[in-house]
Amino acid sequence: MLDAKDMKILEILMKDGRKPFTEIAKELNTSESSIRKRVRKMEKEGIIKGYIAVIDPSKIGYNVVALTGFDTDPQNFLMVAKKLCEFEEVKKVYTSTGDHMIMAEIWAKDGQELTNIIFNKIGKIEGIKKVCPAIILEQLK
Amino acid sequence: MLDAKDMKILEILMKDGRKPFTEIAKELNTSESSIRKRVRKMEKEGIIKGYIAVIDPSKIGYNVVALTGFDTDPQNFLMVAKKLCEFEEVKKVYTSTGDHMIMAEIWAKDGQELTNIIFNKIGKIEGIKKVCPAIILEQLK
Amino acid sequence: MLDAKDMKILEILMKDGRKPFTEIAKELNTSESSIRKRVRKMEKEGIIKGYIAVIDPSKIGYNVVALTGFDTDPQNFLMVAKKLCEFEEVKKVYTSTGDHMIMAEIWAKDGQELTNIIFNKIGKIEGIKKVCPAIILEQLK
Amino acid sequence: MLDAKDMKILEILMKDGRKPFTEIAKELNTSESSIRKRVRKMEKEGIIKGYIAVIDPSKIGYNVVALTGFDTDPQNFLMVAKKLCEFEEVKKVYTSTGDHMIMAEIWAKDGQELTNIIFNKIGKIEGIKKVCPAIILEQLK
Amino acid sequence: MLDAKDMKILEILMKDGRKPFTEIAKELNTSESSIRKRVRKMEKEGIIKGYIAVIDPSKIGYNVVALTGFDTDPQNFLMVAKKLCEFEEVKKVYTSTGDHMIMAEIWAKDGQELTNIIFNKIGKIEGIKKVCPAIILEQLK
Amino acid sequence: MLDAKDMKILEILMKDGRKPFTEIAKELNTSESSIRKRVRKMEKEGIIKGYIAVIDPSKIGYNVVALTGFDTDPQNFLMVAKKLCEFEEVKKVYTSTGDHMIMAEIWAKDGQELTNIIFNKIGKIEGIKKVCPAIILEQLK
Amino acid sequence: MLDAKDMKILEILMKDGRKPFTEIAKELNTSESSIRKRVRKMEKEGIIKGYIAVIDPSKIGYNVVALTGFDTDPQNFLMVAKKLCEFEEVKKVYTSTGDHMIMAEIWAKDGQELTNIIFNKIGKIEGIKKVCPAIILEQLK
Amino acid sequence: MLDAKDMKILEILMKDGRKPFTEIAKELNTSESSIRKRVRKMEKEGIIKGYIAVIDPSKIGYNVVALTGFDTDPQNFLMVAKKLCEFEEVKKVYTSTGDHMIMAEIWAKDGQELTNIIFNKIGKIEGIKKVCPAIILEQLK
Repeated sequence: MLDAKDMKILEILMKDGRKPFTEIAKELNTSESSIRKRVRKMEKEGIIKGYIAVIDPSKIGYNVVALTGFDTDPQNFLMVAKKLCEFEEVKKVYTSTGDHMIMAEIWAKDGQELTNIIFNKIGKIEGIKKVCPAIILEQLK
Repeated sequence: MLDAKDMKILEILMKDGRKPFTEIAKELNTSESSIRKRVRKMEKEGIIKGYIAVIDPSKIGYNVVALTGFDTDPQNFLMVAKKLCEFEEVKKVYTSTGDHMIMAEIWAKDGQELTNIIFNKIGKIEGIKKVCPAIILEQLK
Repeated sequence: MLDAKDMKILEILMKDGRKPFTEIAKELNTSESSIRKRVRKMEKEGIIKGYIAVIDPSKIGYNVVALTGFDTDPQNFLMVAKKLCEFEEVKKVYTSTGDHMIMAEIWAKDGQELTNIIFNKIGKIEGIKKVCPAIILEQLK
Repeated sequence: MLDAKDMKILEILMKDGRKPFTEIAKELNTSESSIRKRVRKMEKEGIIKGYIAVIDPSKIGYNVVALTGFDTDPQNFLMVAKKLCEFEEVKKVYTSTGDHMIMAEIWAKDGQELTNIIFNKIGKIEGIKKVCPAIILEQLK
Repeated sequence: MLDAKDMKILEILMKDGRKPFTEIAKELNTSESSIRKRVRKMEKEGIIKGYIAVIDPSKIGYNVVALTGFDTDPQNFLMVAKKLCEFEEVKKVYTSTGDHMIMAEIWAKDGQELTNIIFNKIGKIEGIKKVCPAIILEQLK
Repeated sequence: MLDAKDMKILEILMKDGRKPFTEIAKELNTSESSIRKRVRKMEKEGIIKGYIAVIDPSKIGYNVVALTGFDTDPQNFLMVAKKLCEFEEVKKVYTSTGDHMIMAEIWAKDGQELTNIIFNKIGKIEGIKKVCPAIILEQLK
Repeated sequence: MLDAKDMKILEILMKDGRKPFTEIAKELNTSESSIRKRVRKMEKEGIIKGYIAVIDPSKIGYNVVALTGFDTDPQNFLMVAKKLCEFEEVKKVYTSTGDHMIMAEIWAKDGQELTNIIFNKIGKIEGIKKVCPAIILEQLK
Repeated sequence: MLDAKDMKILEILMKDGRKPFTEIAKELNTSESSIRKRVRKMEKEGIIKGYIAVIDPSKIGYNVVALTGFDTDPQNFLMVAKKLCEFEEVKKVYTSTGDHMIMAEIWAKDGQELTNIIFNKIGKIEGIKKVCPAIILEQLK
């Protein structure tokens, strides 16, 4: 189980994933080695799954970010979800209880490229029956 | 504009946001100071918006992650979107062209807490007309 | 925590809620007093919430059983859900992440009575914005 | 046809399905044998279909209860509905006039297990075309 | 209760509501007075609610027949349904468990007149929140 | 083209399809033969498609009247619509621009019979992909 | 009524609205003055409502074209539709029987501007209850 | 890149696509040859895709204009979209992120012809799974 100090460390790293352990240590009034040990433990247990840089897609030419729902044959569901993960344009994949059981975040340069990715690439996966992209207009948090 | 080396750095940091610049430099056959300069520039221009630790919510007691759509009076739309960002339980907020124009990711310990967050806290924001949570079952990527 | 014997008792009572403890004891090769003790404990801890006779509504004149979704102002959500519980015609109430956040099972003698219950009685609760009844045609399990 | 006394007995047993006939008799000012006779008759005629213990699923480790709609080929509809009844994880099955003609209540330990039940087990039934789970957040009545 | 002869008479009149009783009598091998008596009884008991000529709307200039769903405040539901019946352009009104609880058949000369009927006349009824017309393309039976 | 007198006759017959021509003649201040001639002409031109007795289905044992939408392969659409017309339980069939392109009115004795009609009879038509029944609760006009 | 030559002229102008009358005349083997007379007549009768240059929005910086549905109070419907016409960003407005009774085509530079147009400008019109933009990815004809 | 004068010319031509260059020149205080050069350049670069006469469909006998959504197998999506363009009755085709990924504008003389076009002609294209026409009631801009 996590104690209060672990939770504090998580909160800090969820906001600034690159913060040096020395700084975290100072903030929490403890030693750098203690922070390091706790972080390593949380990494090992899968509590911390990794660290990522958060990019503004539009600033590197990806003007269209689409939260895309997929309907599949139930028989092919898990296979489709796994295949989706293999595409570089697909940044996130999860299963959900919403209108579509598979949701994926897809990045494209413009609408025409999105059409191309969805139908000439992803849409060729066997078992996909419907594709429903919703464009993300603005991320606020 | 970004050159090929910038794009490489972004790719590396989108996978491992904590990788030391010295390692990135070695990988890209350049100096640590060159990497540092490029990263600082991309941070300053808002291309890199930050770095975050990616947490497995279920491992710290958040068993219910809900991708939640909000319908609002068009008059109050932007105000509602901004107020949503202030809640600690709300991890992401964006506007989209899907079934609901505001989407938010909410973390809760269980279904009962989700009901409580949605209706006793968030639902009190003036202008919210409908709340549609979909539970994320599993994140695959 | 429940052990294997507790789980066995639960399974038996979920199929025949009136089975005498003596019979359960014989089936599980233990004493009647042991069964009684375990059952009382599970009742006290809220694991067993009660025992009910399962009725065939059509055989006592309720020809229309409607699984009914309710949309409400988020502000009035919890109050509406609680008020619904007070109606005798409403047999079950729960909150869900489906198309409607409140679902209720309503029994009526015929379609005309259902219309009357929904609009002259339940529909008068303040804060209800839409009522969506779906008729249960046949219960198979 | 049922008389007023039968209806009273039903009301009592729908609330407390384990109440001894002697207590019901006292409450209704009649003999235990009269109650027994009436109950046996209603059981025989299928008015009382059985007695069940009502369990709180979350207290025995089932954190996810999903009211799940199924779409099928009309040709396979009745066969699918019957096959669904055979799964232990499926607690209730009925046909309805709502968005999905088959509705089933499924119990799972968490979201990942639900995904597994739905796609690796139930989804393999031939003729199922779409599966739409809605999570029950809280049962109020 | 209806006997077989009554049912036969109904079947005949549901296909040809103007058929003279003498012809029905001949067809069913009975007297004209017996038919008359049975029909009068069924009219009196509300089994036969009336007789109508079935018109082809497009042949008298009604090119647009719209099956129109209405959403209302639950509080005003029954009042709205009754008010709808008063409009000459509204040919049928019923309550249903479909996507909209009130359905009405509206006849109009063209799309522009339909817009006018729906918004300048019917839409002024207090309590109507949404109007969803679907155009009937062809009646086959 | 129809003149004002034709329209008057139509209005009368749409309300009382069995009204004797002599009475209509008196009402419109004209001769019975004139009425007869005009009616015969409108029948011949398909303006009047027929006359029907309007029955209260619940009074002859049809407790469930379902406005049922059908989704089909576009390839089989017209064939399905025609086959539907052949079923005795199907009282009306039309094509529409609503959620389902084929709508049919089906009469059944109860929910179980409706399930049976829809899946064991109608659902066997090749090309039907989805069936969506909505129960008519009450006809007001 | 239009004759075959009028229809030919329309077909030509629907493809090339700037074609000189002399060329149309040559194509149809008639005089320039005859074409001019026919075109003027069709303009006067409102058959030809005007001529427009067809622009590729993305080539002049409008990267987001949204086919946007509006839901309104029925009471304010016609007023809202008319107000929408006054906005420069709104290129087309029509009423329809689809999911939304008002549809409008809106041009914006990017997603953020679309959000701004919809909520800070258009959304302020009284009576608008819901706004549902769908992004046009590519126009093929 | 376009300058302010180019934008002015576009604005003028988007309202009156047939306006002579001499008149545009006078309006913008420049020479006819300058206008001609700029227009030719914008035509060549695909900024101006063409010029069309705008017709009132109902005035030439097309009483039914349907904005029609198509659902397809993702595998056949692009092929279907291209085939749709070949039909004369189909006036516009585009891909979108709305409820249906292909939208087409179809003109027909009446509802029966629309049914015929959709199912006997267009519906025969392989890969089309669902067709959802919405009737345009009135174009306001």
